[in-house]
Amino acid sequence: MMDAIGIKAKGAARELRKVQSTQKDAALKLMARKLLENRAAIIDENRKDLAGVRHSGLSAAMIDRLTLNDAVIESMAGGLNEVAALPDPVGEVTRMWMRPNGLKVGQTRIPLGVIGFIYESRPNVTVDAASLCLKSGNAVILKGGSEAIHSNLFLAGLLREALRETGLPEKAIQVIPTTDREAVEALLGLEDLVDIIIPRGGEGLIRFVTSHSRIPVLKHYKGVCHVYVDEFADLKMADEICFNAKVQRPGVCNAMETMLVHEKIAPGFLPGMIRRFQEAGVEIRGCPKTVALFPDTISAVESDWPQEFLDLVLAVKIVGAMDEALDHIDRYGSSHTDAIVTDDYHHAQLFLAEVDSSVVLVNASTRFNDGNQLGLGAEIGINTSKLHAFGPMGLKELTTKKFVVYGRGQIRQ
Amino acid sequence: MMDAIGIKAKGAARELRKVQSTQKDAALKLMARKLLENRAAIIDENRKDLAGVRHSGLSAAMIDRLTLNDAVIESMAGGLNEVAALPDPVGEVTRMWMRPNGLKVGQTRIPLGVIGFIYESRPNVTVDAASLCLKSGNAVILKGGSEAIHSNLFLAGLLREALRETGLPEKAIQVIPTTDREAVEALLGLEDLVDIIIPRGGEGLIRFVTSHSRIPVLKHYKGVCHVYVDEFADLKMADEICFNAKVQRPGVCNAMETMLVHEKIAPGFLPGMIRRFQEAGVEIRGCPKTVALFPDTISAVESDWPQEFLDLVLAVKIVGAMDEALDHIDRYGSSHTDAIVTDDYHHAQLFLAEVDSSVVLVNASTRFNDGNQLGLGAEIGINTSKLHAFGPMGLKELTTKKFVVYGRGQIRQ
Repeated sequence: MMDAIGIKAKGAARELRKVQSTQKDAALKLMARKLLENRAAIIDENRKDLAGVRHSGLSAAMIDRLTLNDAVIESMAGGLNEVAALPDPVGEVTRMWMRPNGLKVGQTRIPLGVIGFIYESRPNVTVDAASLCLKSGNAVILKGGSEAIHSNLFLAGLLREALRETGLPEKAIQVIPTTDREAVEALLGLEDLVDIIIPRGGEGLIRFVTSHSRIPVLKHYKGVCHVYVDEFADLKMADEICFNAKVQRPGVCNAMETMLVHEKIAPGFLPGMIRRFQEAGVEIRGCPKTVALFPDTISAVESDWPQEFLDLVLAVKIVGAMDEALDHIDRYGSSHTDAIVTDDYHHAQLFLAEVDSSVVLVNASTRFNDGNQLGLGAEIGINTSKLHAFGPMGLKELTTKKFVVYGRGQIRQ
Repeated sequence: MMDAIGIKAKGAARELRKVQSTQKDAALKLMARKLLENRAAIIDENRKDLAGVRHSGLSAAMIDRLTLNDAVIESMAGGLNEVAALPDPVGEVTRMWMRPNGLKVGQTRIPLGVIGFIYESRPNVTVDAASLCLKSGNAVILKGGSEAIHSNLFLAGLLREALRETGLPEKAIQVIPTTDREAVEALLGLEDLVDIIIPRGGEGLIRFVTSHSRIPVLKHYKGVCHVYVDEFADLKMADEICFNAKVQRPGVCNAMETMLVHEKIAPGFLPGMIRRFQEAGVEIRGCPKTVALFPDTISAVESDWPQEFLDLVLAVKIVGAMDEALDHIDRYGSSHTDAIVTDDYHHAQLFLAEVDSSVVLVNASTRFNDGNQLGLGAEIGINTSKLHAFGPMGLKELTTKKFVVYGRGQIRQ
C-alpha cells in the first residue's frame, strides 16, 4: 500500500513542477472556502475522534489540541488564504553568471519533490502542512496521529476536492489512512520515492523517525534557549526581555529555559527580576550563588541545565565572565535560540559570532525565533540540524536549487 | 576511541569558528610547502602501501590511483594554494532586512561544524578534502581506504604540523588510524558530535554509508547522464557535444551514458555520429529502431537504460517526440546531469523547466557538471539528493546559515 502512495506522490510531484502560481493560489483559496462551507461536517467528523479518546486518558491539553471548532476552522481557512498571498519561491533564479568560455550558469529554485510529513494530534496541522507543500510545488504524504484520523481524512478530502476542481492532481495531498506504526516505518523506507521527511511533535516521535528513516530528516529535537544578561546590560531592558522570553508562552520551543547573569550586575538585577518571576508563578532553579542570594529558590541539579522545561520553570546561573556564559551555552544549549542583553558593542558582536545557534539575538526576546516573526511568512518547522536550512523553515526552505546552463555548443577541453 | 576523536573534532570546530581567513590561508600555504619539502618521505610511506597491495589482486587502475609520485605531490600542493586563493564563504551576510517592529534580521554563513569524510583509495583526496574543510571553517575526520593508510597518516601528519605552526588546532584534521570497518560504523553513529557525512567512492561504499549512518549524508550514487538531440538541433553542434560528452573522459560521473535522438533528424544525424563513436571504440547499445538502421550495433536490454557504464559504451534511443525523451529521462535518469541540443527556443525552455536534475544544460556538454567548470572553485563532491545542496558542492556548500538579529529591546506581543 505504501509503495502505491509513494508512486502516486512522485507522479503528482512531476505534474506540480509544471504548475504556475495562479493555479496553486486558486486551489488554496478554494480550499479555504470549502473549509468554511463544511464547518458542520468537519465538526461532526472531529466528534468521532473526540469520542474515540474519551476513555483513553489523553490529557486535557491534548484533547484541546485535537478539538476543531468554528474558531479553529476559521483560522485554518485564514491560513490557507495567507499562504495563497505569499510569493511563490519556485522559479526564482537566485544567481546567474558567465563563465570565461561564454557558458551562462544560473541557479533556480525547484520544489524538493515529495515530502513525508509526520505529526501528532493537531488536525489543523494537516491543512497547514498541505498548504505550504502545495504552494512550494511539493507533493505531500501526511501521517497524523491515530487519534485524529477521522478529522485528518475528512479535511484532506476537502483539500483534494479543491485540487480536482482547479485541475491539479488530487494525489498531491495524500493521508495515510491507517493508524498503525508499521505504516510510518514503511513510509520511512521509501527512499526512492520520498525526498524528505519532516516530523513535528515531541522528542520521542522525532527520535523514532530519525532512527528509522532511510530518507533525510529535517528535525527539531528541543529548544534549550538562553538569555545572557551581560555586565553592560540595560537592566530595565533585560528585565522586559527575560520576562517575555520565559512567561509570554512558556510551553513553546523558543521560550527561555536558562537565564545567565553576569555577577557584577546580579545584585542590581536579580532581586527585582526574581520577584517578578515568582509573582508570575515561575519556579526558579538556581546555581549555588543564586540560591545563596535567594534562599527561597531551589538548587538546580546538573540535569536542569540541558532541560527543556516547556513550563513556568527557569534555571538561573550567575557567571563570572562572558566566556563562562558562552561555554555554558556551548555545553548545554540545543543550537536553537540564544540572546544577549548588552549595551557593549564588542560583547554584542562576540556573542553573534560565537554562539552556534540557528537564531542568535542581541537585545530582543528569544520568542522571535519563528518564521512569521522573522519575516519568512508561514513556517513548517524549525530545523536544529545544520543541513539544508538551519532554523525556521518557510516556503523557500521547502525548495532546493538546480543549475541551469545556457550554452552555444561549448564542449570540455 | 571514536568518541575521543569526535570530541576533539567538536572542540576544534568551536575554535575554528573564531579563526580569520588570513590564518587559514597561511596554514594552507604552509601545507603546500611542507608537501613539496617532504616529497621523498611521502613517496617512501606510499611505497609501504603499494607493497601491501602487491599480491592483493588490486586492479592496475586502482594501483595507479594509490600511487603518489612527484607529479601527484605537486598537484596536491597546487590544489592547496588554489584553495588558499579562493574567497572565504564564512561570515558572508547573504541577506539582511528590517521587520516592522524595527528588528534587523540577517542570515550569515557559518561552518557546518564537524565533517566525516569517507573515501576510497586515492591518498590525494586526504589533502583535497582537508583543505576544503579547513577553508570553510570545519573540522574533519578522514577515513580513507585501508590500502592507503600509511600515505594518509603521513600526509595528514604534515597538514597537522602546518596547523600547529600557524597556531590553529591540530585536531581540526584527524585521520582514523585503523583500517577496520567497525571504525566506520562507529563514526556513523556519532550523531551528537559529527554534523555531516560525505562519502566519496563507488556505489557500494555510498550505499553502505547511507544505510548505516545516523548522521545526515550528502551522497552521490551515480550519473546516468543523457543528451537529447532535438528535431531542431544544429547537427554539427550535436555531433561535437555528444562526442565530447561520451568520449572525452568516459570513466567519470558526468559522461553521457544514453543519447536520445528525435526520429526526424535520426537519418541525417546518426550515420555520421555512430561511425565517429565506433571509430573511437564506443560500443553502441541501441533501441530496436537504432538496431534496424545500424545492424552492426548491439540490441539494448532494459538494464542498459538505467546503467552507469563509466566506459566506452553508449545506449542510444530514437524517440518520436520530445515528451518521450523527457519521460525517458524521468524514468531512467539519476538526477545528475542532462542536456538538450536544440535551436528551438521553446524546446530549450521546456527542457530546462522539466528536467529534474542537478545540472540541466542547453547546447553544452554534460562534462561541465563540475564545481570548477561551473565557477564554484574547487569541489568536494556532487550531491544528487536534493537536500542542502543539489549538484556540485564547493566551499559555500560546506557552510550553513544562521539568523542574526539586532534588536533594541523588542519583546513579542
